[in-house]
Amino acid sequence: MSTYLTILGYNSAIPTVNASPTAQFLDMEERAFLIDCGEGTQVQLRKAKVRFSKINHIFISHLHGDHCFGLPGLIASFRLLGRDTALNVYGPKGIKEMMETIFRLTETHKGFEVIYHELKSKSSEKIYEDSRIEVFTIPLDHRIYCNGYLFREKPKERHLNMKEISKYPEIQTCDYHHIKSGRDFELSDGYVLKNSILTTDPTDPISYAFCSDTRYWEEVIPLIENVDVLYHESTFLHDLKEMADHTGHTTALEAARIARKANVGKLILGHFSNRYSDLSVFTDEAREVFPNTFLPKALEAVKIG
Amino acid sequence: MSTYLTILGYNSAIPTVNASPTAQFLDMEERAFLIDCGEGTQVQLRKAKVRFSKINHIFISHLHGDHCFGLPGLIASFRLLGRDTALNVYGPKGIKEMMETIFRLTETHKGFEVIYHELKSKSSEKIYEDSRIEVFTIPLDHRIYCNGYLFREKPKERHLNMKEISKYPEIQTCDYHHIKSGRDFELSDGYVLKNSILTTDPTDPISYAFCSDTRYWEEVIPLIENVDVLYHESTFLHDLKEMADHTGHTTALEAARIARKANVGKLILGHFSNRYSDLSVFTDEAREVFPNTFLPKALEAVKIG
Repeated sequence: MSTYLTILGYNSAIPTVNASPTAQFLDMEERAFLIDCGEGTQVQLRKAKVRFSKINHIFISHLHGDHCFGLPGLIASFRLLGRDTALNVYGPKGIKEMMETIFRLTETHKGFEVIYHELKSKSSEKIYEDSRIEVFTIPLDHRIYCNGYLFREKPKERHLNMKEISKYPEIQTCDYHHIKSGRDFELSDGYVLKNSILTTDPTDPISYAFCSDTRYWEEVIPLIENVDVLYHESTFLHDLKEMADHTGHTTALEAARIARKANVGKLILGHFSNRYSDLSVFTDEAREVFPNTFLPKALEAVKIG
Repeated sequence: MSTYLTILGYNSAIPTVNASPTAQFLDMEERAFLIDCGEGTQVQLRKAKVRFSKINHIFISHLHGDHCFGLPGLIASFRLLGRDTALNVYGPKGIKEMMETIFRLTETHKGFEVIYHELKSKSSEKIYEDSRIEVFTIPLDHRIYCNGYLFREKPKERHLNMKEISKYPEIQTCDYHHIKSGRDFELSDGYVLKNSILTTDPTDPISYAFCSDTRYWEEVIPLIENVDVLYHESTFLHDLKEMADHTGHTTALEAARIARKANVGKLILGHFSNRYSDLSVFTDEAREVFPNTFLPKALEAVKIG
């Protein structure tokens, strides 16, 4: 089971023919997470051939239209497609009022439960957990209350060293679970086999940080330290630093500084202002500070880790 | 000045890669009217190369998502593009609450006035008028309160018959206005020139009727009689008449019956259920009753009249 990120749209503000607003699909350990949902996201999901029924958790960073105006239509389509399982929506306080007002006035009878997890904390909090994955908020500094999200696999089980294990017939299949979790094994004669002999180190847990709209904000650094992939907005180049600050956005140079200080594996930029037609200027600027920087490729599933 | 209809989207319910939900752009005597606004309409408008700033009047038939979920994003884009002139939005009662709730929670500070004309009458009413055009509601029979819209040029001025007029030097340019409006002209010797000699008949006023989601509903017939073009929904073929009734829709055969009984010039079908991949079945069925029936061509400006 691997983790794949599909960026569905990475442009800011106004949707155009070739520029979809923010939305990402994260397939992590067979969990299907949708991150942000600008207008047209449901069509982008179709282009990316994502099965709608897989999506049980939607994370909205903030309530600006280019990050959430696709949500009412997506949920209405879920209904039309016969969905009957609950849907979890994580987002700023107010998202429930907005969605439920829309559903009441449009007489959208959903036929399944939408569970809203409304956020208002300015500190990072764990908002999702299952046996394999945790999701944390990454509070950001935008014009409106806004969170990024950190998706992190839990530490994985150790790998069995079958060459060693096969030397001891009394170790049985039912013992593997404990051994993989790190325990030593005591043979019937009292001899203790150290776990470090019976296993090898586990695969590193994968982590992905999505930093949506924000000013340059160093407080995210401890939260996203060492993640495999960081998506960070970079609406402007650094010569428009003043405009970036004024509108609550980051420059490519600043995004790269965050990536370097947080020691991330790879940086993907996004949320580009429509004023730039050639996006390579963003990587040109960022790579001066953080060489492993990339532009997003819309609709392409990229393996993380 | 001519009238052009551009159908931006003509599919029902779920937007897909090749099927946009309902939206139409009507350019009538240089007035720019947007009719319905499903999700993705702003991108369709861009594809059709419509200048956003031209649109001052938006008519929403009903509050189902496939007819209005593109409106918040379009209005947000108007703001980002620097609009400062008022926008008129016509639609069912509730549209103001929906839009203003969205704008409040998304902190969309519009910077221009949105004037809501909320409709609740079950009788046809004139909702727009200027020197050349009138717009009337066409109450329909759907699952939710729903109006079609009739766009009609006012009777035009008569054409001057310059060959006759030039025989009478005392008729001056400043008299033309009265003559075009149908008045006779009295010469200084008391002789009265009949208007029918000085003018020829005016061009017929153009009319376009948009009949959005509805069951077969003969009450529309007197309202749309003799229009040049009728757009009428036909979500299903007639073998699914029962489903059409149940869901508040019309079959292709029924749409053709309406067109024939109303003696319209041309019928355009639309709002097709996604279950049909070959849309020619709709015209095949309708033409048995009303031969001058056509499928919509997305993004193509079609001259009316």
